[in-house]
Amino acid sequence: MNCSINEEIERYLSLNRASYLEGLKEFVSIPSVSAKGTGITECAEWLAGKMRELGIETEILPTAGFPAVYGELSKGTSYKTLLVYGHYDVQPPDPLALWKTDPFEPKVIDDHLYGRGATDDKGNIWAVLMGLKTAVAVGDVKLNLKFLFEGEEEIGSPHLPDIVKAQAQRLSADYGLLCDRGIHESGRPQMYLGNKGIVKVELRVKEAKREVHSGHAPLIPNAAWELVWALNATKDRHDRILVEGFSASANPPSEEDLKLLAMIPFDPESFKQEYGIKKTLKDGSPQEMLAHLLFTPTANISGMASGYYGEGSKTVIPNEAIAKMDFRLVDGQTSGEAKEKIGRHFESLDLDGLSCEFLGSMEPSKTSPNAPSVKAAIESAREAYGSEPVVWPLLDGSGPLALFTPCLKVPMFVVGLGAPFSRANTHAPNENIGLNEFYKGISFMANYYHRLGKMRR
Amino acid sequence: MNCSINEEIERYLSLNRASYLEGLKEFVSIPSVSAKGTGITECAEWLAGKMRELGIETEILPTAGFPAVYGELSKGTSYKTLLVYGHYDVQPPDPLALWKTDPFEPKVIDDHLYGRGATDDKGNIWAVLMGLKTAVAVGDVKLNLKFLFEGEEEIGSPHLPDIVKAQAQRLSADYGLLCDRGIHESGRPQMYLGNKGIVKVELRVKEAKREVHSGHAPLIPNAAWELVWALNATKDRHDRILVEGFSASANPPSEEDLKLLAMIPFDPESFKQEYGIKKTLKDGSPQEMLAHLLFTPTANISGMASGYYGEGSKTVIPNEAIAKMDFRLVDGQTSGEAKEKIGRHFESLDLDGLSCEFLGSMEPSKTSPNAPSVKAAIESAREAYGSEPVVWPLLDGSGPLALFTPCLKVPMFVVGLGAPFSRANTHAPNENIGLNEFYKGISFMANYYHRLGKMRR
Repeated sequence: MNCSINEEIERYLSLNRASYLEGLKEFVSIPSVSAKGTGITECAEWLAGKMRELGIETEILPTAGFPAVYGELSKGTSYKTLLVYGHYDVQPPDPLALWKTDPFEPKVIDDHLYGRGATDDKGNIWAVLMGLKTAVAVGDVKLNLKFLFEGEEEIGSPHLPDIVKAQAQRLSADYGLLCDRGIHESGRPQMYLGNKGIVKVELRVKEAKREVHSGHAPLIPNAAWELVWALNATKDRHDRILVEGFSASANPPSEEDLKLLAMIPFDPESFKQEYGIKKTLKDGSPQEMLAHLLFTPTANISGMASGYYGEGSKTVIPNEAIAKMDFRLVDGQTSGEAKEKIGRHFESLDLDGLSCEFLGSMEPSKTSPNAPSVKAAIESAREAYGSEPVVWPLLDGSGPLALFTPCLKVPMFVVGLGAPFSRANTHAPNENIGLNEFYKGISFMANYYHRLGKMRR
Repeated sequence: MNCSINEEIERYLSLNRASYLEGLKEFVSIPSVSAKGTGITECAEWLAGKMRELGIETEILPTAGFPAVYGELSKGTSYKTLLVYGHYDVQPPDPLALWKTDPFEPKVIDDHLYGRGATDDKGNIWAVLMGLKTAVAVGDVKLNLKFLFEGEEEIGSPHLPDIVKAQAQRLSADYGLLCDRGIHESGRPQMYLGNKGIVKVELRVKEAKREVHSGHAPLIPNAAWELVWALNATKDRHDRILVEGFSASANPPSEEDLKLLAMIPFDPESFKQEYGIKKTLKDGSPQEMLAHLLFTPTANISGMASGYYGEGSKTVIPNEAIAKMDFRLVDGQTSGEAKEKIGRHFESLDLDGLSCEFLGSMEPSKTSPNAPSVKAAIESAREAYGSEPVVWPLLDGSGPLALFTPCLKVPMFVVGLGAPFSRANTHAPNENIGLNEFYKGISFMANYYHRLGKMRR
């Protein structure tokens, strides 16, 4: 990379920071909460308009749920093509009382922009787009670009598979980049070469036709107890998943994976402090703990409710109970196989009132650190951030990486352009992005577009 | 019992039905809703006035909450003393839309008086007082009487223990009667010789300082899982309570209890239909099922909540979880012993984030069917109602019977002078009392005062 382009990028960026930040604030102020179905159309249209202003040929792709925004910037068939994926929907802001600002009235406090979506994923999308604006302003970008921003990521991307299937031809690309999450806590840039799969489950128990006085407890079945027994039969206190055969096909980390893990800063003490916990569920060397975090399939209760749990007490036998779970899958597992085993597991418990519904799923994905697009990203990151990127062989969360495999010549990977994950509070109150983090992300993207452009034969 | 007194009672009653009913209507028209704090003073003063008109020396006992009305009718130290307990407060009438009459404008429709409190407990109290008026009119009642009517029963009697403790000397009596509830569905008179105790528990689990993305599930402790494990360790799928030694001191039903149970009408099929359940937790003969219902200590989850349980899903590790439980105690158990065992149980689980708080308790109570005051009540019931009473050795719920044990020479028991529990709608809209039920209750009480009066040595 010639230094002059990088300097040009920084110079241009320094002149445009204020307007770039204004754009992000506008974006964040639209309450596009997919779990509640609010602000979605408004947000998709706003985003499409902004993309068109950048010269991107843009359309809104309807789905059976919420639409995706798709755009192309074509430079010619002799150029290679990069597909960038992101999502314009956000998590619900609940519990509202814990926010120090209105989640949809973004505000800068101490050089951080607060608001739902500031990092996840509007901060990322905006860095992708402002990176393009910057790159184009400072030179000829010799790369075709395709952008796919969906509106259902936070509810498990239920229609993304349909979109990718229906548009596979159009989405075909040489390189694939997923922009989500943020830089590393150390300030180093960060990327993830794969992610876990996920299967979401809703358990419901129904018993009597109404709440019954708890004096009748010796005779009337209690939905809360049945839920407790069903859940307890699914994972034991030693964190062993009791769904038969669930983890059998999970691949352990390779030699290459272990090498990357050894280079990731991880301090168990600050990890514990960060989350305010006394101990982690697994102890060991940083590398061992990371291997456990990334290569272990999980069974998680994300929520449950039954009966009366307000102030004081109400002596009733609950007649309904609900639990939400997510099972995470690693390389080697598939969601189809997992669902079959989970479904069979809950049936085998022989609890009359229990039913199990699948709310969505994603496949696990894993890309080699030797892929040319990964190597280029590592170099752009070094230049833009001035430090060595932290490269994770896997992400402990789930995403749609694996979906794109059929239309990409090289598997996709993730670059994080937002605030460090642990501080961004992306699924919690007070989500934010550091202004410096935001500007570095733009700089990285501008650099990466130019670098990929030079890679054409 | 001489027949003449009974005939006298019926004759006097037939001449006074209209005025007795008018009195009950006045009583019911005062909206003494303790949950809302309305009409309480007005009702206490009205009741005290009516008691004074009957020659009862009456005072209003203040508490830290709502006052109780206390009265004495002393005939001399050579006579025995009966203490009668009831409550003048009522449940809120909500939902108002479902009432066919104004809940505080009592109205007779098809020989039933409709209004909040018509059975629970104003109908009962008024039968107690008009029974006295009748008894005195037809002969010399050779019995000292004490009446304690509290104003906080429907909010859990928070200050009744204080009253009983402070007034123990004054409340001392040879016999004790609690008038609440109603006759049996079959039309037969009904009494309950005891009730279960209760210990209310709130369990809380606290882990991380906030909700954490569920990708971190391999390392971050999950409050919902810990709650599930704690609850599962407390009762198994076969309904066995796992709190060490919890049920050890529980007395099984005696031969005498079993005889009473055999005489209680109970149809398992209509019980299941009533609550819309496919099966009860225990099968067997009606007598076996009733024995199980009444003589089994229970561990009930009345509610629980953790994490996100709304629409859709949110992939988080909950950092807090709550459960409300009630443990019911039978004869032989004490709340002190139960609390100690429950507390030790949850401590022994060695779950770091778990804490257990006790929200309140009541003792179990059980009176022998051979107690002279019970035998007298059974005979008075036979005479007044002309049919065999349904006598429950225990009530499956909890109540204040045991509170009075320290000041009574014979334990208290419950007589129901209102409409059948299933038809009275005492905590629901359209609460009512059958006029015939009301007059029979008065007749029973008049008969009972005279019968107890004859029992003195």
